[in-house]
Amino acid sequence: MKKGLLIVISGPSGAGKGTICKALLEKQDLWISVSATTRKPRKGEIDGKSYFFLDVDEFKDRIENDGFLEYAEVYGNYYGTPKASVNEKINNGEDVILEIDIQGALKVKENYPEGVFIFILPPSMDELKKRIIGRGSETPESLMRRFKSAYKELNYVSKYNYAVINDKVDIAVSKIQAIIAAEKCRVDRIKENIIDSKEGIVHEQFYD
Amino acid sequence: MKKGLLIVISGPSGAGKGTICKALLEKQDLWISVSATTRKPRKGEIDGKSYFFLDVDEFKDRIENDGFLEYAEVYGNYYGTPKASVNEKINNGEDVILEIDIQGALKVKENYPEGVFIFILPPSMDELKKRIIGRGSETPESLMRRFKSAYKELNYVSKYNYAVINDKVDIAVSKIQAIIAAEKCRVDRIKENIIDSKEGIVHEQFYD
Repeated sequence: MKKGLLIVISGPSGAGKGTICKALLEKQDLWISVSATTRKPRKGEIDGKSYFFLDVDEFKDRIENDGFLEYAEVYGNYYGTPKASVNEKINNGEDVILEIDIQGALKVKENYPEGVFIFILPPSMDELKKRIIGRGSETPESLMRRFKSAYKELNYVSKYNYAVINDKVDIAVSKIQAIIAAEKCRVDRIKENIIDSKEGIVHEQFYD
Repeated sequence: MKKGLLIVISGPSGAGKGTICKALLEKQDLWISVSATTRKPRKGEIDGKSYFFLDVDEFKDRIENDGFLEYAEVYGNYYGTPKASVNEKINNGEDVILEIDIQGALKVKENYPEGVFIFILPPSMDELKKRIIGRGSETPESLMRRFKSAYKELNYVSKYNYAVINDKVDIAVSKIQAIIAAEKCRVDRIKENIIDSKEGIVHEQFYD
């Protein structure tokens, strides 16, 4: 059974990860992992769809039961990626999208280096500032903290496989679709379907 | 100046490299390198377009003057990739396509590991046989030799970055287009345009 891809869409706060993932899911059949968090829901967020909103005790229980692919504390809240559902989909041959901050993505990379790590870059620093302000759910202090952190975080791009500038959403999405299509052709991933490493010959099954 | 990509389209004889390259060039602005060879022109082949047809002395002169990115003797004929024109285009930011046999591609990889190496797979062994026979320019002995060689050559797929099955030409071409688009997003390739390695900070120019 051919495994699905784990596609990690990551980048600084305000780069537009969420918008891109939403647009990508409209174009392509992918399963998006829903994170768990202990932070309070923002306006319009739905439990089980935006996040699984857990209280701190529930979250810590799951940590102890090895229930997360990664988890982290960010700005005083816990965020985590439930492990079982992601593994199930991938082993079932389905491609999984993770939309995740940088701290989380780097932990996923440690546990799952064969993932496809895509860094979303804001089109400019000014635009990044505007987007963070536009979110409107922050105090001026937390805004400045968030912007400075986003600027510093841009340097983590070097830990990723791909970087995509989110200038126009549809262009960014088509680049991500190209990345997914290309990764499915990578010899590293499909070698065992073509060549029998023991026999050193070409699989007949490859052509079934 | 951002360098162009060297995209190497390779695979066994009869896999359909030529058909794919022709269809790709109709869809995308790429510069295809024309090889030099000492073999006799086949029906319909044009000097300077299909190949540069050289005599053996001319070819050997060029070898001595380091004029080839790679060259090889295959079935008693010389084939080579003229070096200067490829380098010029790449340094000028243009993407270059090389359509080349496996022996040649592996030599190019030694000299130019940052190339994008794409292996074209025939849809089936039966189809491969049909295609080699359909070419009609071979004796039965050379046909069998060519088929056996093609079968053995399939194992070299593991030396390549990508494998694309040439079942339907337009699907194979769209996969190659995805590979090219994805490679342009690879952090390995664009890192120096984003991060200043000395300063460790994000380039303002990246956003110009």
